Amino acid sequence: MENRRLIFVTNDDSYMSKGFRAAVNIAREFGDVVAIAPDRVQSGMSQAITINNPLFIREVERGEGYEIHALSGTPVDCAKIAFDHIFLGRKVDLVISGINHGSNAAVNVMYSGTMGAAIEGSFYGVPSIGLSLDDHAADADFEGAVEYGRQIVASVLEAADRLPRPLCLNVNVPRCPKSAIKGIRLCRQTRGFWREAFYARKDPQGRDYFWLTGAFQNAEPQAEDSDEWALAHYYVAVVPVQVDMTDYKMLDALNGVVK
Amino acid sequence: MENRRLIFVTNDDSYMSKGFRAAVNIAREFGDVVAIAPDRVQSGMSQAITINNPLFIREVERGEGYEIHALSGTPVDCAKIAFDHIFLGRKVDLVISGINHGSNAAVNVMYSGTMGAAIEGSFYGVPSIGLSLDDHAADADFEGAVEYGRQIVASVLEAADRLPRPLCLNVNVPRCPKSAIKGIRLCRQTRGFWREAFYARKDPQGRDYFWLTGAFQNAEPQAEDSDEWALAHYYVAVVPVQVDMTDYKMLDALNGVVK
Repeated sequence: MENRRLIFVTNDDSYMSKGFRAAVNIAREFGDVVAIAPDRVQSGMSQAITINNPLFIREVERGEGYEIHALSGTPVDCAKIAFDHIFLGRKVDLVISGINHGSNAAVNVMYSGTMGAAIEGSFYGVPSIGLSLDDHAADADFEGAVEYGRQIVASVLEAADRLPRPLCLNVNVPRCPKSAIKGIRLCRQTRGFWREAFYARKDPQGRDYFWLTGAFQNAEPQAEDSDEWALAHYYVAVVPVQVDMTDYKMLDALNGVVK
Repeated sequence: MENRRLIFVTNDDSYMSKGFRAAVNIAREFGDVVAIAPDRVQSGMSQAITINNPLFIREVERGEGYEIHALSGTPVDCAKIAFDHIFLGRKVDLVISGINHGSNAAVNVMYSGTMGAAIEGSFYGVPSIGLSLDDHAADADFEGAVEYGRQIVASVLEAADRLPRPLCLNVNVPRCPKSAIKGIRLCRQTRGFWREAFYARKDPQGRDYFWLTGAFQNAEPQAEDSDEWALAHYYVAVVPVQVDMTDYKMLDALNGVVK
């Protein structure tokens, strides 16, 4: 068993979610699994880290070749404590974050705790895959996401030695029966932003409150190389993600302006 | 007064921080100010949004040409409620997020709530400036940050009509007396990642807890075009930020691999 792969699994919907269990099960097909997930829902937590509070971790479950822990922190905290405290010195072969209940295509990659953790995992030189299903339901049908997730995990593990680092994939699976999925498409992140419509009501004490709700505005619905297009046409969208956020074109435009 | 500019100010250290007050004061020199900041410290909150809780907002202070509100949410929530609920239909001329207590250079742009809000502001087509001082102290000396911040705000407002959108600047000011600052440099984001050393102790009940602490590992300390180099050499670092995180080089490498 010495050559068994070691796979780290995390997510943002907490260790109790159906999608997390699906990710653990995929990972177990490929190696030993250490899973550390938030102890409560951490959707929309982005790359957030816990600076001003201590973190507690507890074992939730352990079996043949896998263990699951719950952490009182964000998805990125899960990745950091895994790599900088638990795995110290051990070779980790893969990070899987998910399977998220809800799409993380387009600019959602910025808000997603699932992708936050996947991105953080890639910072440790380990191939990282964020897996998301375009369905928020707690009891969503993960059959297609599991089949294609497994296929992508196999491909990445097979090619890992010849791919550069950091390596992070944002994988989104359409909401449809497995049989309706047409295949996998390599894509770029769709341009577009969310516009919110705050749900405004009064609480029992008569105080105004506001609740975030909104819709993604796709700036390029016809772009066949975009991840939103792929999802809308029943393809699994795979976008490689990097974190140099420098706007190089803007650097030129700013020459002589900011001085 | 009809032609007064409208400037939105926010941050992640809360409306009570010294740096926030400094940002409001800069903004007031250029127009009317509506400031909405978190009602508590939200450092490290990245692009996080509040999905599963309602938000409450209260007015903290109001005076000639400015008003300050506190929101029970993240920095990005502050920007979203400003643009999608309060400013509806009004032209906003500028977003200032900060002045942050602590540098947001390099990969810190990913974790920073200050930059999360600045980035979010840019999604609304408004020039956005994240201002940070490389000093975490609550009573940090903001004199240099205010002077250079003012200068950059003036430059951006002057050139706003001829600069493309989205426009977001990550401005970091070195920790030194104002007189020691050598000037402003346009930079790119430094490559490198944090490595954490978790501070592990036992709580009063004997339970283990972990507290995040770590150090940024600069992968290119000699790169004279990087923001970390600029800060280390007493320059104000200005990095334009964009949010297409697609790793285009990796797209080529993945061709035929992920299928």
